[in-house]
Amino acid sequence: MTVPKSHPRYLSLITRDRLVEGWKNGLVVTQGLIAHGRGEAFDYLLGEVTVDEARKAERTAACRMLLAERLVISVNGNVGALVPGEVAELSRILECPVEVNIFHRTEERVSRLAALLREHGCYEVLGEEPDAKLEGLEHARALCSRKGIFSSDVVLVPLEDGDRCQALKAAGKDVITIDLNPLSRTSKTADITIVDNLIRAMPNLISEVKDLKEDLKAEKISRDDMERTVSDFSNDDNIRSVLRSISERFSSSDEK
Amino acid sequence: MTVPKSHPRYLSLITRDRLVEGWKNGLVVTQGLIAHGRGEAFDYLLGEVTVDEARKAERTAACRMLLAERLVISVNGNVGALVPGEVAELSRILECPVEVNIFHRTEERVSRLAALLREHGCYEVLGEEPDAKLEGLEHARALCSRKGIFSSDVVLVPLEDGDRCQALKAAGKDVITIDLNPLSRTSKTADITIVDNLIRAMPNLISEVKDLKEDLKAEKISRDDMERTVSDFSNDDNIRSVLRSISERFSSSDEK
Repeated sequence: MTVPKSHPRYLSLITRDRLVEGWKNGLVVTQGLIAHGRGEAFDYLLGEVTVDEARKAERTAACRMLLAERLVISVNGNVGALVPGEVAELSRILECPVEVNIFHRTEERVSRLAALLREHGCYEVLGEEPDAKLEGLEHARALCSRKGIFSSDVVLVPLEDGDRCQALKAAGKDVITIDLNPLSRTSKTADITIVDNLIRAMPNLISEVKDLKEDLKAEKISRDDMERTVSDFSNDDNIRSVLRSISERFSSSDEK
Repeated sequence: MTVPKSHPRYLSLITRDRLVEGWKNGLVVTQGLIAHGRGEAFDYLLGEVTVDEARKAERTAACRMLLAERLVISVNGNVGALVPGEVAELSRILECPVEVNIFHRTEERVSRLAALLREHGCYEVLGEEPDAKLEGLEHARALCSRKGIFSSDVVLVPLEDGDRCQALKAAGKDVITIDLNPLSRTSKTADITIVDNLIRAMPNLISEVKDLKEDLKAEKISRDDMERTVSDFSNDDNIRSVLRSISERFSSSDEK
């Protein structure tokens, strides 16, 4: 597709094209296109920028991921289509597996996603041969890998379904999500919710993790500092603050 | 598709089906499905009804169209798929051409849309052989008809891209749009923005135009009255008012 770079909404239009491409290649289900449209609307409400609250959540998420014992990045069709390179880079710098974990599960789609993630150089790719189950979900949606999500302590699950997010919580995981809808069940259930566009959030997470790793090495910060950042973070407060900004944006839209 | 009429969201679901049908028939691009999903989210924020501000904009738009010297209705894929009959009826009662004008241009899609609009009995259909260009847009998106959009004084362009809306304004046109997103560039750029679902707005426009024509004939109103309606209308104020209502709806729902 040919959206000119000069278009002021280039990033949004290119994102849409990338998703349509992923849908043509069998990575994205049609339902995923609709979900993306809804996400776009919420991004408008944010002004299509990374708001301060998202920045804070991204910083906190980076700390939590670096402190994890067994971190896993869970990837569905939309995430694979939109940010495969960023997922791969994040998994390499965190040395953690990436698990394909899709809502409308078919073996073919799982293999395609896994192949794509390998192509992009993920640290390790799981999910093709699930050998464990999460409680509280019906069969197809409960499947996961014993050495991946099942035994993880922290999961980064961008664009996750509310039910599955709750099942992960019930299984005792710390859940980090990226979700443009601050009112979604996923947003409310996760421990750290990054209310931001995946396309902006992933590069931010990568640079936060890189910075923290350097600062740790240079002893500019300690693991205790990172633990404090995590324990000081209130997800409820952060989401409420996002909702307040959206509401203000709406009422004081004299900006123009 | 078999959505029962009793379904509380019947209109929204039927609309979605119509769009999917148009997409199967090659009228709608896949990106158009995503755009529609975004629209649905904004319609939720309005409560899925024609708000008072939209009513007012529809009345004003009807006046402006009746006062136009050279009115054109610009139609893209989503508009063609959703309201071809209404576009045709409006063009007949206003005796104005309809111009096919699509964002992701292919000649095949232009022909299909033109054929569909002719089938529905549009007054005149243009756009298949563009012979003019709008300034400030790259080639494919700049194309238009000399006897249509290029020489028009007023354009009704539902669901228009922000860049193209600005190019129409720069070319000195009066722009009327229908857009569910009150924050879009199109909404902010147009002279009259109808923040309403196309499916509700088009029948409203038709009945407003019919009423005005009858009232003119019966000398219940004059052209001066219509001109006053148009000049008294502030698009900025009207959008601000929509945003205030949404904000109230939003903040009261967040309290729970």
